[in-house]
Amino acid sequence: MNGNDRIILAQGGGGAASAKLIEAEIVSRFGGGALDGLPDAASLPGGLVFSTDSFVISPRFFPGGNAGKLAVCGTVNDLLVSGGIPQYLSLALVLEEGFSRKELGEILDSVRQTADQERVRIVTGDTKVVPKGALDGIFINTAGIGVMRKEAELGRDRLRPGDRILVSGGIGDHGMAILAARHGIAGAGVSSDCGSVRAFADEIFRIAGGGVKLMRDPTRGGLGAVLTELLKGSPCGAELEEASIPVSEGTRTLCSMTGIDPLFVPCEGRIAAIVSPEFADDILAAWRRLPGGALAADIGTLNGDAEEIVLRGNWGGLRRMILPEGDPLPRIC
Amino acid sequence: MNGNDRIILAQGGGGAASAKLIEAEIVSRFGGGALDGLPDAASLPGGLVFSTDSFVISPRFFPGGNAGKLAVCGTVNDLLVSGGIPQYLSLALVLEEGFSRKELGEILDSVRQTADQERVRIVTGDTKVVPKGALDGIFINTAGIGVMRKEAELGRDRLRPGDRILVSGGIGDHGMAILAARHGIAGAGVSSDCGSVRAFADEIFRIAGGGVKLMRDPTRGGLGAVLTELLKGSPCGAELEEASIPVSEGTRTLCSMTGIDPLFVPCEGRIAAIVSPEFADDILAAWRRLPGGALAADIGTLNGDAEEIVLRGNWGGLRRMILPEGDPLPRIC
Repeated sequence: MNGNDRIILAQGGGGAASAKLIEAEIVSRFGGGALDGLPDAASLPGGLVFSTDSFVISPRFFPGGNAGKLAVCGTVNDLLVSGGIPQYLSLALVLEEGFSRKELGEILDSVRQTADQERVRIVTGDTKVVPKGALDGIFINTAGIGVMRKEAELGRDRLRPGDRILVSGGIGDHGMAILAARHGIAGAGVSSDCGSVRAFADEIFRIAGGGVKLMRDPTRGGLGAVLTELLKGSPCGAELEEASIPVSEGTRTLCSMTGIDPLFVPCEGRIAAIVSPEFADDILAAWRRLPGGALAADIGTLNGDAEEIVLRGNWGGLRRMILPEGDPLPRIC
Repeated sequence: MNGNDRIILAQGGGGAASAKLIEAEIVSRFGGGALDGLPDAASLPGGLVFSTDSFVISPRFFPGGNAGKLAVCGTVNDLLVSGGIPQYLSLALVLEEGFSRKELGEILDSVRQTADQERVRIVTGDTKVVPKGALDGIFINTAGIGVMRKEAELGRDRLRPGDRILVSGGIGDHGMAILAARHGIAGAGVSSDCGSVRAFADEIFRIAGGGVKLMRDPTRGGLGAVLTELLKGSPCGAELEEASIPVSEGTRTLCSMTGIDPLFVPCEGRIAAIVSPEFADDILAAWRRLPGGALAADIGTLNGDAEEIVLRGNWGGLRRMILPEGDPLPRIC
């Protein structure tokens, strides 16, 4: 037996260890079709997009959201960044014996409210109960079906040197809000960005249409992991301007205190997009007018250095971005 | 606080307690559309069917299957009994830190093999890892999309007195196989019926088309719970012939030993169908020719006694079928 015979926590963190696990266990068995490139959602014949996500977040209630809101927004966002307009969700609950009915009600009220806001319908579901100790409280899974926007032409093969990299708001708020809530850091003043990116997706497609090359929502592993995934197998690389990467004041302070790089901290309501350069300014202007979009920014450019991501520091020096193995924060979503 | 403030195990068992929980927490919030009547899968505009299921079974390997095979067949069967032809699946894994990579590989090999046999594609997924103790091993969720058969016209409003009730094989094998495996009853000789009902669905629609009124796969709560659900809100009731209800030799013996009524023991590869009487004999003849279909049987008739299910015993007496509150076997699927 070697060190690879047991699942380790880092394999769920969205970093390099996650990528290796998914490659070895999932892509090796199920790759070769819609799964290739591991998009946030599968594009199916007939213009459908299909996605799923399980939510195991702890704590279940946090500044800016709760497990129910997250479970809807997580799947809705995966469909949106894949070019889809979300339509239908499934809702599967696994409950631990002894779980509070009141808390279940609060979580489901949030599911309902968020689904209504997003104009998605919960159309099918499943509810299981497991004996006490077999699960910590509640796990939620949602799967979603959306209809692909006609104007969407996303694809890794469409990336070109010179394309701009945009983010729709400050990064890392979700992860740092969870960290603060978990460790009882009172007055951290960080609220999760947990929310739908629907308005941001509507605007970027309205303005740029086929000029939108690729999008992701930077959840596990944060912006750093998502850009690494987007450029995997691409002849393009990226140069990011460190000073341009938007981070809210509270998150920046908490990151400094803890030594965590916000580049690798999860968001739950942001878009990272690669677009044709001529649309970048108009997209940013529109995004900044949206609630939550004040910090939207152009953070860098694609170049011809296959897959490689470099950061230009505040004083001009260049360094290579290295994806961490794991994530300092398990159960972030 | 009263006794209703905590989730109890019986609420996951598929019996009366489950039905009450789902009514209070799910239907109250999300009902009024595709969820009404709680079909196994939602019928969506455009001829799609959509379903989801989480799998928390213990033990994960059992005579006749394992968690991976079950996770594919469970959702595939929900689509099939709803009149759909399964096309695409999502696969969401939640793994406990320390889970065996070898066991994960075996489970995923089964997922792959079963999906290939069923001609469904795993097109999207999610993999989470939670700290040791937050989950017992592995939970799997699948969601599935299928295309509705053109000839399917399922609907509670189509039930009529005189319609026949058919089952496609011996009932209760899955539940009793799990019970035997869990309690180390060696030589019980009971193997789970875990498998796809694809061939059975193909035959019933080929023979009866719109003459198929309603179908379910009798999983949690068994045949008794499924018939109760099918007749809920219907002007029809049912009279079942106890002697006609097929139970394999091994399951009958184990049930006698344990005092468990096979009528309420889960299957994972059977169909319960209500059909126009003129098709019943042809369907049964076709089903009996299929692997696993030798015990297929006509077990009773619809009558005009709204929602009520009665059993005619082996000596002619009638008794009302009472759905148990819970299920003697948690984590059956």
